[in-house]
Order: sequence, then structure tokens, then C-alpha cells
Amino acid sequence: MNLDALLHSELDDCVKGLPPAGAPVRLGDIGRRGWNLLKGDLPLPVAVIKRSAVDHNSRWMRRFLEMTEARIAPHGKTTMAPQLFAKQLADGAWGITVATVGQMTVCRRFGIGRVLLANQLVGRQEIETVLQELRRDAAFDFYCLVDSIDGVRRLTEAARANPAGRPLQVLLEGGFAGGRTGCRSTDEALAVARAVAAAPQQLALRGVEGFEGLLAGGTPAEQDAKVAAFIDYLVEIARLCAGEKLFALGPVILTAGGSAFFDLAATRLHNAVAPAGVEVVIRSGCYLTHDSKSYRDLVARLMERMPAAKSLGEGLRPALEVWAYVQSRPESGRVIATMGKRDVGFDVTLPVLEQWYRPGAHPVPQRADDLGTVVALNDQHAHIEVPHDAPFQVGDMLAFGVSHPCTTFDRWQLLYEVDEDNNVIGAIRTFF
Amino acid sequence: MNLDALLHSELDDCVKGLPPAGAPVRLGDIGRRGWNLLKGDLPLPVAVIKRSAVDHNSRWMRRFLEMTEARIAPHGKTTMAPQLFAKQLADGAWGITVATVGQMTVCRRFGIGRVLLANQLVGRQEIETVLQELRRDAAFDFYCLVDSIDGVRRLTEAARANPAGRPLQVLLEGGFAGGRTGCRSTDEALAVARAVAAAPQQLALRGVEGFEGLLAGGTPAEQDAKVAAFIDYLVEIARLCAGEKLFALGPVILTAGGSAFFDLAATRLHNAVAPAGVEVVIRSGCYLTHDSKSYRDLVARLMERMPAAKSLGEGLRPALEVWAYVQSRPESGRVIATMGKRDVGFDVTLPVLEQWYRPGAHPVPQRADDLGTVVALNDQHAHIEVPHDAPFQVGDMLAFGVSHPCTTFDRWQLLYEVDEDNNVIGAIRTFF
Repeated sequence: MNLDALLHSELDDCVKGLPPAGAPVRLGDIGRRGWNLLKGDLPLPVAVIKRSAVDHNSRWMRRFLEMTEARIAPHGKTTMAPQLFAKQLADGAWGITVATVGQMTVCRRFGIGRVLLANQLVGRQEIETVLQELRRDAAFDFYCLVDSIDGVRRLTEAARANPAGRPLQVLLEGGFAGGRTGCRSTDEALAVARAVAAAPQQLALRGVEGFEGLLAGGTPAEQDAKVAAFIDYLVEIARLCAGEKLFALGPVILTAGGSAFFDLAATRLHNAVAPAGVEVVIRSGCYLTHDSKSYRDLVARLMERMPAAKSLGEGLRPALEVWAYVQSRPESGRVIATMGKRDVGFDVTLPVLEQWYRPGAHPVPQRADDLGTVVALNDQHAHIEVPHDAPFQVGDMLAFGVSHPCTTFDRWQLLYEVDEDNNVIGAIRTFF
Repeated sequence: MNLDALLHSELDDCVKGLPPAGAPVRLGDIGRRGWNLLKGDLPLPVAVIKRSAVDHNSRWMRRFLEMTEARIAPHGKTTMAPQLFAKQLADGAWGITVATVGQMTVCRRFGIGRVLLANQLVGRQEIETVLQELRRDAAFDFYCLVDSIDGVRRLTEAARANPAGRPLQVLLEGGFAGGRTGCRSTDEALAVARAVAAAPQQLALRGVEGFEGLLAGGTPAEQDAKVAAFIDYLVEIARLCAGEKLFALGPVILTAGGSAFFDLAATRLHNAVAPAGVEVVIRSGCYLTHDSKSYRDLVARLMERMPAAKSLGEGLRPALEVWAYVQSRPESGRVIATMGKRDVGFDVTLPVLEQWYRPGAHPVPQRADDLGTVVALNDQHAHIEVPHDAPFQVGDMLAFGVSHPCTTFDRWQLLYEVDEDNNVIGAIRTFF
């Protein structure tokens, strides 16, 4: 499969969000059907991406990376959309980050040459799949994480039993107490690094990795200080590994920076030094579509933290919306809409009512920011508290901004790209 | 598409859970590949269904329905798996319940003759799709809900503009204050019923519907009393409608009963009387796979509430598990596993660690009930608190029971059916 084949692939009427009367349709033809969201051409709920906002965010990130001299390997798990990966690579992304070997396989099917598995590689099946792919394509540039001597031993044994023809490139993961994966101390980290360096036929230590996004608690300033200290800890691990000459040939890759603190990663990781230089790689997955709540708030803080970012012009714009109908207003203060846990993320905060539109009455969608609050989601319903005099009636369309794009993308195999007038100008397939 | 075509359809290596080396493979051939979960033949995480537990639950429900003289239209939104719908229909199900027109379309593609849309039907596209399908197949037996005069007016107008050749069958929805959809009083309900009866060419009032599952609060006994009172309210609505002769010809359909209180629905709805008789239909979607926490607790209460149910033998068994690897044990009290929000439901409670297995060391999976607690999920990771002397190490397999099957099914396009020894004996495709 490549992108061209994907665009030629046919979607049938069992794909959620596709109008049955419009199916089957080739993915690449959807933008030419003349569909418009506001005309009721799409069955609701649907998820839409504003292409202009994605283009804007894309440009913003390019300028951010130029300014900070960092690279990006955007986390593919956010969208799992090869069409968006292609856009990110065309924008100059260093590679694509993934969380699982299955996600790596999707990247490989779409010809992506450099993949960073930001995770430990475990499991017979999984390790074999990676080694096989390295064997099959000598140009495949793959990295995964290690954070334990046990894990290193398993990779070494697998690679010895099933040689890939070249060492498996690994990044040493630093972590923090109470956090997720990663070595908790420089001593632990060095011990793991030495175990990697002791198996040079099988493994190559290419850099240091960490994920700061789960460092929580305290005031914003305290949290920023924690993140900065953690990034500095990664730099210290790199310094110690370089001092013991544990890194394999080539520039040392230093990577951290999810979608909330990538400024701190992009700037502070440059403090590391290595004989062959360092390559700083951030991994934000959410910048492309941004969101209306969780990352909106986090990136607003980023902009305060980094005054230089303001020189890049308008910041990230939310690009992702889910639309649903009012199906009932059973009490004057309560609206029920045709959107539920199956359709929108709810893991960080509930979705945010932003616009409404009455077919046949409104020329364009109206702002609805103060007209209602989503208070609960069931599998297939949203409960919205509204003022008693709110204007909504059955059949009105409601647009919701999302919080945390990852858990909205994974609810759709098909998302529509729309222009400013909600004309459907394209469609995006995901692979979750 | 029919089931046979589905079983012949090919899955490629981009389908989550499929071993890349085993792809492409026809869905119906997966059970003949000789794969075994414990041998590492499947990439983790994967979701598996124990076929013996599903068969047991299927038989249990058949006996329950014989005992209560109720019918079932299992909620298809739970699994969205036409293969499981076919099993439920073969077991005697009255029809399949759905939540959206898209889900109805999936049912129709697989030849399901009776569909209950347990929701208001709104939207130009959606109403047209239903009317078109009624026109296309005179045998299609379809029902949807109404709970407002406005909604009735919209359906009437659409059916007048675009006649289906026969009236659209609707069920009048009763609701409760602070709840979801549904008329809050008998006066409101009667007004809606009269509006339906006033458009006999377009609409036919065929029964009364309610969903009691969201009635919360108080002690278990108080909650049971609320549910019973709500079911009685539906019976009262039916009595009033019958008194005014608002029902169309045929038995009156009375339907309530999700997966937690279907005993109260199955028994109390029979209190209604109508000239042509009543048909009591429950709609549990979760009985087939059951779960390890949320519905386990709710159905345990059901069994206490209904001593007669004990005569049916062993109750429902949990059939659904998600397996993942230990990828890191960064602190002695913390294990990180390769399973996250993308792989398992977390909306009611977090998944439950139930078994563990060390490849090459254990003959069979070991119980792990007291060996760890899932305390957090990220998109692709589980954080598990374990006793400091817990035996887990990198590469161990962990099996998790789920809480609320609906939100685990919707994370997988492919689930494996396994036997008692975790041999893969089949595979189930979902359509979310």
C-alpha cells in the first residue's frame, strides 16, 4: 500500500461517517463530491478537520523548528493517518514516532524510512517483525528504547538468534520516580548503556530519550521547573554515556518533548555535547490539529514560557471538530445530542460546545461558547446543560471542539477535511 | 456484504492485532492458522474472546428469556460485530438494537431483517436513509423513538415528502427528570403519541420504550425501586395510549432493559395489557461477553434481586480479555504494560489484572488477582501498582479483564476467539 493506492481504495457504507447513498466511494474522490456539512450531506456525528488550520499549524511548527534548530519526529499515534504523516514529512519532519510495532508496520506500508518506536520493544512476534523489516530493507532507519538490563539482554539474544545484518539502534530511556518507563537514576542508566555497548554486533546505542509529559503537580512554574530538571537529567545521562564512549558512531540523538513542553526539550537538549554532534528531536503529535481545551491551555502556557515563540506570529489553531444533532431537549435546561464516547475523546476533559447551526435558518454557524456545557457522555449520547432560554431545538447542528486529539482520532476511520465554509474538500483515513 | 463475504474478506498487516508475518489472511481462515496466544504468535496488545464463555452466556440468556417470556433485541452498539449478531439471531433474538443510522446500515448490509433504533431519528441524510431502506425492502421491520412533538413533525414532513410506502414505526420514549431522552410526564408522552396518531399515513405508534440504566443514586435497594417505578411509568404510558386507541395495529411493543436491570424490565413490562397483546423486548448488549467488573457487579445484584434466576444455573461468565506485555518494571512497586486507552475501556473503571504468564516458564497462565492494580492508563501504556515482591519481569504476559465491554470492543477492528488453552479458533470483525 502506498498513498496513491490508499486514495484509490474504496470505502463502503459500513464506514462510520460516510453517507450510505454516497458509498462506495474512493477515498481520494470524497473531496470532489460537492458535499457540504451544513447542508446535511453527511450523517452526524462526523469528525472534521479544517484544512486551513492544519496548514497554519504546519507552518507554525516549521518556523518553531527553524528558530530552535530542533528536528521533529511527530508522534504518529495521535492521528495514525498516513496522509498526515506524508504532509509532516514533506514539511521536513525527521521521521515518524510510533508507540507499537503495529504502528511501525503501518508506517512501513506507506514507505516511511525512519521510525522511532518511543517504547520498549518486547515480545517474540514484535522483535521478529522489527528484525525482519531491518533485514528486508537496508535503508530502514529504526530506533527503539531500552530502560533495563533485562530488556537489553532479550533484544541481544533475539538479534543474535535472528541477525538483522546490522545492529538494532536503541535510545536509552530516562524516567522519573512515580513516572512511566525509563531509568530512575544515572547509575541505572549507565548500567543499561554499558549492557548495550557490550553487544556491539547486535545493538547500537544511538542516543537518549525521555518523556516529560507526565510530570505533574504544583504550580505552573513548579511544573516547568520539574520538566526543565528532567530534560537536564537526560542531558546528564548523555554526558556520562559520551564520557564512557558508550555511544555508537554518528551524532547522538536526544529526544523528548511531547505536545505540552516541546519548547523546553527543543532548547535545553542542545546543552548536550558529543564528539560527532547532537541531533535534538522533539515528538509532538498534537501540534498539527491542536485542540480546544487540553493542549490549547498547555500551549498557551508554552507561549508564556517562551517569549521568542510569539515572534512566530499567531499560535496554533484548533483544527478538529465533531458535529452532532440535537436529538432531544427533554427539559428546558438540557439538550441531548447524537454524539457519545464512540465519537469524541473524554479522557482529559469533555468536549466543548463551540458553534451551532440551524439548517434552513442560519446563513453560517453561530458561536455557542456560552450556550451550553457538555456534562456527560454515554456511549452514543452527549448530555448538555444549557440556559433555560438557550435557542436549541431538535434538528439543530452542534459543533464541539475536542480536548486531547489522540482519543478523538482513534474513534474514526474516516475524518473529513473541510474548508472555511464547511465544504468537504478531502478525507483522511486512520489506521487504529 | 454478507457473513460469507465477510469471512472471505482479506485483512492486511495494517489491522491492529494481526501478526504482520501472518498477513494478508482471510478473516475466516484465522482460526485455522494454528496460532496460540501464549506462544507469542500474536502481537500484543490483543483482545480475545473466550468462545466457551460466549456460548455459555448465550445459553443462559436463552433460558432467562424462556423463563420470563420476554424477547431480546440485543444492543448491537456493544459489539458492532455482525458475526455475533448472527449468533444472537440464531439464538432466537427478536431483532438487533442500534444507536445510529450508520449502525442500522451495517445491520442491513448483513441482512438483518428487524432493527430497533433506540434513539430519535434526526437529520436530513439520516431520515432519508431510513425511508429509502424501507422503500427498498418491504420486509424490513424498523422502529425508532420519538419523544417530542417537534421530532414527530419532522419525521412526518420527511415521510410525506419522501414516502416510504408504509408508515414509519415509532416507539414513544419515556424518560425521567435529569436523565437522557424521553418524555418526562404522561401528559407530555400522550401529547407526543397523539401527534403520531394524527399522521397515520406517515407514522405508526407501535409501542413504548425507555432506558432505565442511568437511574443512579441511593442504596442498591433504592436504585432498584427507582428502576421498578420507571418501568411502571412506561407501562402506565402504554395503558393511557391504549385507552385512547393511539397504537397502530398489532401487538404493542414494550421495551426497556439494558444490561444491568433487564430482569425488572422483563418481568414488570408484562403488567401492560393491550387488545392485540404485548411483546416485551429487553435490549441487553453486554450479556454475551459480560465483563470482569462493572457488569459483573450489576448482574450479581440482578441475581440477588431475582432468586428465580439462580435456577438457571451458573450465571454469566466474563468472556473478554485484553493481553499485554510487561515492558518495564522501573520501580519495584510499579509495572508498565503495553496496553493503553487505545486498547481497553476505562470509562467505568480501569481494567482488572487477572492472569499472568511467563513464556517458556509457565505451563499455563497463573492467577494474578492480588498481584497488581491498574492505577492509570496513557494512550498506549498501563501503569500497574504491584507489591514489591510481585514476580513480574520484562516480557511476561498479563491478562486484563475489562469493565464495560462496549468501550473495549470499539478499540478493535479484530478480536480473536480462543479456546480454553488460548488457541486461536476464530476471529471477529467489528464495524465502528
